[in-house]
Amino acid sequence: MAIFANDPTRTSWLDVPADSDFPIQNIPFGVFLTRDDIITIGTRIGDTAIDLGAMHQLGYFSNIPLTDDIFLQDSLNDFISDGKNTWRAVRNRIAEVFDNANPELRDNPEHRSIILFDLDEIEMQLPVHIGDYTDFYSSREHATNVGSMFRDPENALMPNWLHLPVGYHGRSSTIIPSGTPIRRPNGQTIAQGADRPVFGPSRRVDFELEMAFITTDANSMGEPIPIEEAEDYIFGLVLFNDWSARDIQKWEYVPLGPFLAKSFASSISPWIVTLEALEPFRTSSPAQEPQPLPYLRQPGPGSFDINLEVDLIPEEGDPTTISRSNFKYMYWTMAQQLAHHTSNGCKVNSGDMMGSGTISGPTPDSYGSMLELAWGGKRPLELPGGGTRTFIEDGDTVVLKGYSKKDGLRIGFGEVRTRLLPAISL
Amino acid sequence: MAIFANDPTRTSWLDVPADSDFPIQNIPFGVFLTRDDIITIGTRIGDTAIDLGAMHQLGYFSNIPLTDDIFLQDSLNDFISDGKNTWRAVRNRIAEVFDNANPELRDNPEHRSIILFDLDEIEMQLPVHIGDYTDFYSSREHATNVGSMFRDPENALMPNWLHLPVGYHGRSSTIIPSGTPIRRPNGQTIAQGADRPVFGPSRRVDFELEMAFITTDANSMGEPIPIEEAEDYIFGLVLFNDWSARDIQKWEYVPLGPFLAKSFASSISPWIVTLEALEPFRTSSPAQEPQPLPYLRQPGPGSFDINLEVDLIPEEGDPTTISRSNFKYMYWTMAQQLAHHTSNGCKVNSGDMMGSGTISGPTPDSYGSMLELAWGGKRPLELPGGGTRTFIEDGDTVVLKGYSKKDGLRIGFGEVRTRLLPAISL
Repeated sequence: MAIFANDPTRTSWLDVPADSDFPIQNIPFGVFLTRDDIITIGTRIGDTAIDLGAMHQLGYFSNIPLTDDIFLQDSLNDFISDGKNTWRAVRNRIAEVFDNANPELRDNPEHRSIILFDLDEIEMQLPVHIGDYTDFYSSREHATNVGSMFRDPENALMPNWLHLPVGYHGRSSTIIPSGTPIRRPNGQTIAQGADRPVFGPSRRVDFELEMAFITTDANSMGEPIPIEEAEDYIFGLVLFNDWSARDIQKWEYVPLGPFLAKSFASSISPWIVTLEALEPFRTSSPAQEPQPLPYLRQPGPGSFDINLEVDLIPEEGDPTTISRSNFKYMYWTMAQQLAHHTSNGCKVNSGDMMGSGTISGPTPDSYGSMLELAWGGKRPLELPGGGTRTFIEDGDTVVLKGYSKKDGLRIGFGEVRTRLLPAISL
Repeated sequence: MAIFANDPTRTSWLDVPADSDFPIQNIPFGVFLTRDDIITIGTRIGDTAIDLGAMHQLGYFSNIPLTDDIFLQDSLNDFISDGKNTWRAVRNRIAEVFDNANPELRDNPEHRSIILFDLDEIEMQLPVHIGDYTDFYSSREHATNVGSMFRDPENALMPNWLHLPVGYHGRSSTIIPSGTPIRRPNGQTIAQGADRPVFGPSRRVDFELEMAFITTDANSMGEPIPIEEAEDYIFGLVLFNDWSARDIQKWEYVPLGPFLAKSFASSISPWIVTLEALEPFRTSSPAQEPQPLPYLRQPGPGSFDINLEVDLIPEEGDPTTISRSNFKYMYWTMAQQLAHHTSNGCKVNSGDMMGSGTISGPTPDSYGSMLELAWGGKRPLELPGGGTRTFIEDGDTVVLKGYSKKDGLRIGFGEVRTRLLPAISL
């Protein structure tokens, strides 16, 4: 079905720089503080932020059944709860208003001055209130690499891995938007061969290159979501940096999984790009052998061709791209993850977030973590400006970027940028 | 410091049956729907529910700085955010109003008709909106029993277990109050020796006898809570049944921990008993050897003497008490759990819930799960009315109860009661 907002031939009367992640075909959703310190839901075209709360008050959405305050909120949860048809209607209407040929707002300077903001006038917030956050572990290359280093290269993949999308529950309270600095965590670690742990700053702080999807209310408790319907409950995606402390993780994770090694911080990009905007970039995921059980059989192509990049910026130095990967490498699809997650009747709510797991590609320059890029510290990365890295150092900034591109159309996510500050002293 | 509300000599003008869990010294907090379908925050004395929203509107809390709508909410989160001094002031004031000698409400029939409800007129709700839920694994006996069955009897406790309170993040969206029935989950399991899993109803549904504590806003992201202050951020406790599907768990839990084996349902008792009300029952936890690292050293007695009991009620049969345990058996204290949880800077919010882990005592009749009571199916429990149980069967109801008793004072939790319904058909 053709979606008006996705028509690649259309342009906007707003300026869109070449190679912008945010042409009029994107129309992502986010939450920001305006120059007047008002919180609102908005979208973005080019480098212009658009206040949807103001647009709605000025009548631009009068043909769509929306509550008066649907965009005057500090999270997208209620809007996401309105469901897929509403998301589409709102995206289509935004595409219409900002279309090059449409004068309604273009030629109304008073309304423009209320609705439009330069990016430097606004402050992006967390786009959703995340009730529950789950992280999957769905890159075969990543699971194999980590299994080789943490356990046994001969049996790197656990016996369950090819049969189900392994996942675990994560901590919602420390998910932060791009731009928020984080602290190196303290924690328990144990030296090789030591018989007692010590407590202090982690020495193996790592990023994880992930994407995450945001859901809408999907089911009643006790009821599964069939895989054929799963994508209807996915609002959109963000870039996701699942910060990890490898030394804490290695000591704490048996037998109940990662805990404090992850819960100190997780960063997301602030604009949620809708699944609908990504439709032109749909592609197949890797062939699955053995064939999954029927409740996990993916109906048609279930992945998306999204180029991903990790930049490392030392405190005094230039950015270096240390990894280039792609979302399409993931073995398990989002629909499989959501169908599996609800197969036991687990309730999924609006604003829940599900991380993909680290997105490692097949080659060493496409690995999605320092653990893999520098192979557990054994192959330090050389930085072009001098110096090396095995893990992330104090003062380093990590930037994840992502975009899809095809036939001249580019739909991107912007970035998630996070600086690591030193541990607090004890 | 003496707390007025805890004075054991005082009695109420409300009827309190002998052996009630809710004398005037308890004053727990909960949320309920009244006969008029209004949601309110309340407390309970004997078998009378007390509408704190109505009491506040009628001026009974006018000497305490509270917002007008603090009790007219569908969760206790905001009240809990007000902090320890407010909790104490409100409990003391309730103790005063319902004291035998106080006529202000006792002799005001109009106010009594607005404020007081019989238990069968109200419907208890979840008392808090749980942002994040963590489950610990802090009973040495339980960890040893499970480690023996799931892994290796010779090395049942993992090397980290005596050094830190092992825990993992759980699913908030499926935490339900007492009385809500649950469904047997479907999921992937693998038969002994099989090379492929199957999908279908779990055949090893189990309860876990736990308690859980509810926190208030405790810290800023990045900052730890010192163990000496940890209890200041604990509002109170509930009984907690951490429903588990052992066959799903065994297959899915490596390497990232339990996921769908737990997230189908978790049940809590609806009245939060404050830590302050439990003060008379404070006791020491088991000696810890090796001594924990300094950030985990418990300052003084950190446990509570709370008798626990598990009743099993077959669909057509009488209740049988299948386990008697005690909260004081836990190796790690709540303060240690909270200090550890925040040692990496993880932010804790009002309404977060932290489960103790299964509370197994030293003897087989004090084990806190069917897995242990029937030793992985090898020692079926005989039910007095006939029949046996290795795990929970469709139609069974599991009831957890808990109370403290000393010098004639009994402070209890009531119960958490949950019936298991058959799996939905696929």
